[in-house]
Amino acid sequence: MRIVHVLTTGGTIEKIYSETRGSVENLESKIDRYLRRLRLPDTRVEVSQLMNKDSLEMTDADRQCVLAVVQAKLAGRRPIVITHGTDTMVETGRYLQRELGPLEVPIVLTGAMTPLGFEESDGLQNLTEALFAARVLAPGVWIVMHNQVFPVDRARKDRELARFVEVER
Amino acid sequence: MRIVHVLTTGGTIEKIYSETRGSVENLESKIDRYLRRLRLPDTRVEVSQLMNKDSLEMTDADRQCVLAVVQAKLAGRRPIVITHGTDTMVETGRYLQRELGPLEVPIVLTGAMTPLGFEESDGLQNLTEALFAARVLAPGVWIVMHNQVFPVDRARKDRELARFVEVER
Amino acid sequence: MRIVHVLTTGGTIEKIYSETRGSVENLESKIDRYLRRLRLPDTRVEVSQLMNKDSLEMTDADRQCVLAVVQAKLAGRRPIVITHGTDTMVETGRYLQRELGPLEVPIVLTGAMTPLGFEESDGLQNLTEALFAARVLAPGVWIVMHNQVFPVDRARKDRELARFVEVER
Amino acid sequence: MRIVHVLTTGGTIEKIYSETRGSVENLESKIDRYLRRLRLPDTRVEVSQLMNKDSLEMTDADRQCVLAVVQAKLAGRRPIVITHGTDTMVETGRYLQRELGPLEVPIVLTGAMTPLGFEESDGLQNLTEALFAARVLAPGVWIVMHNQVFPVDRARKDRELARFVEVER
Repeated sequence: MRIVHVLTTGGTIEKIYSETRGSVENLESKIDRYLRRLRLPDTRVEVSQLMNKDSLEMTDADRQCVLAVVQAKLAGRRPIVITHGTDTMVETGRYLQRELGPLEVPIVLTGAMTPLGFEESDGLQNLTEALFAARVLAPGVWIVMHNQVFPVDRARKDRELARFVEVER
Repeated sequence: MRIVHVLTTGGTIEKIYSETRGSVENLESKIDRYLRRLRLPDTRVEVSQLMNKDSLEMTDADRQCVLAVVQAKLAGRRPIVITHGTDTMVETGRYLQRELGPLEVPIVLTGAMTPLGFEESDGLQNLTEALFAARVLAPGVWIVMHNQVFPVDRARKDRELARFVEVER
Repeated sequence: MRIVHVLTTGGTIEKIYSETRGSVENLESKIDRYLRRLRLPDTRVEVSQLMNKDSLEMTDADRQCVLAVVQAKLAGRRPIVITHGTDTMVETGRYLQRELGPLEVPIVLTGAMTPLGFEESDGLQNLTEALFAARVLAPGVWIVMHNQVFPVDRARKDRELARFVEVER
Repeated sequence: MRIVHVLTTGGTIEKIYSETRGSVENLESKIDRYLRRLRLPDTRVEVSQLMNKDSLEMTDADRQCVLAVVQAKLAGRRPIVITHGTDTMVETGRYLQRELGPLEVPIVLTGAMTPLGFEESDGLQNLTEALFAARVLAPGVWIVMHNQVFPVDRARKDRELARFVEVER
């Protein structure tokens, strides 16, 4: 049985609609419920819910926490998927890349533009792709969404297009 | 072929998730899309989109507009369904009841606690019930949601329970 | 708390896709799972799974079983919904009407043309309508589907139209 | 804009429920409808519907047809996804591998155990994975489903497990 770690940090992918407040918020993790919809016959997914925040509210301490958990998981040489808000996904990814140095497994960051379970959500597509990418990509820190793959140091969120685009060098 | 009028005014039932703003808003009517999922073999649904507002923002002029359209439609003696935000649904319903006087057909107000198409939405259930109620209820102004039927002068929204309850007299 | 009895007998509404055989079959009841998607705040639904058969395979003994359970439930004067295959729904309904005599509550038969949970299924619509009908219809035996209501002695399945139509007298 | 070819041949992934016959059948292609649910911002998917058959009914002539279309598409050096019934997916894949010789792009075969749009379907997951695989895998003929990747000469369908497993050498 393969193992893949999924670390959740919040972001749009996990937002839920609050009936009492009439807004979408990061209230409780829901990745588990959607992971169960995927068929992963030879893989055990180990989910760790680190935090549940809009990524604009993530602090340096939050990122240090993500780093510490990633470092601990890396000891087992298993691929890692991190679900994350798109607004600062690149920032967290570059921080991890800088701090971790050379890797033996892929670390795949993903998220969504519309929350899981909302009409026209891209959440389950991105989760499916990230888990597949964790299996086939080379070691390194990657952003995977919308059928696209970016090395984290080449990605930039384009807010108007509602997706990531490649940074020109 | 029976005819039923559906007048849309907005409310949570029609809210959509805006990717650019990360919030739920009344931006475009989506009732049509969901009506097409229902089988209504002997009924023609005539949809009129009157406005698309959070019902807390509805003004006296908005309610006069709803009244005017309802009065025009009543000439044909066809039942009427009105989709509406739950916060002031009772207010609009009582206003219609007061202004219209005795009726020959049912007028059914409905809405939702969670937008159509979001996970765990009650929107399609309520729309299904309202269209059924428009067929079988007696003339009068009714609120129909969650398998419940209230004469409009007996209903009150209970915000904590996220539903309507009967007013004690 | 209101009570409504739901008696399940099988039919298309409950069929599931068998991966090993590549066909749709009545293998296990799934009504419960879909009932949980409906908001029924003041109602307790009591489900009794009587059998799970294609209604073309229902025998006289099966119908006697349905009758016996209905008679037992009627003692409590609670409305009854029966999910049933459409092919012999009218036959079962007329048998119940004949054997039961005058009623104090509505008995509502419903089913589906496409199984619950399959794309374009009418199952949840029909279940929603039947539960609403059980609340508002007069005593008697009814068929409720597709926003339509038929007294059981006026209904006939039109196989080509894939729905019920009214019997001409 | 990248281009990826999707060739459809039928199989469970495309089956629909026939209300008139009460069975699942290959009647009309529905891949398009589901492809539109995926976000593929930098990719143009060109769909060619070759046939729509249960793969147990595919003939030698059918496979020659698939081969001819694949050969024609390969001229453009674009990756190819083929949707196919799982029962003879390996047979078709090995035939292509044998006839085509060395490749410059990946050819990815995928399908489903439960039709697209049915509850618990694996169809959209597999389609998502196949399109991602077409982007990142090396040239060769692959089977991609359920987060797994098999070189076509290493795969075998395990009917009981309802998935592919690796052939022992």
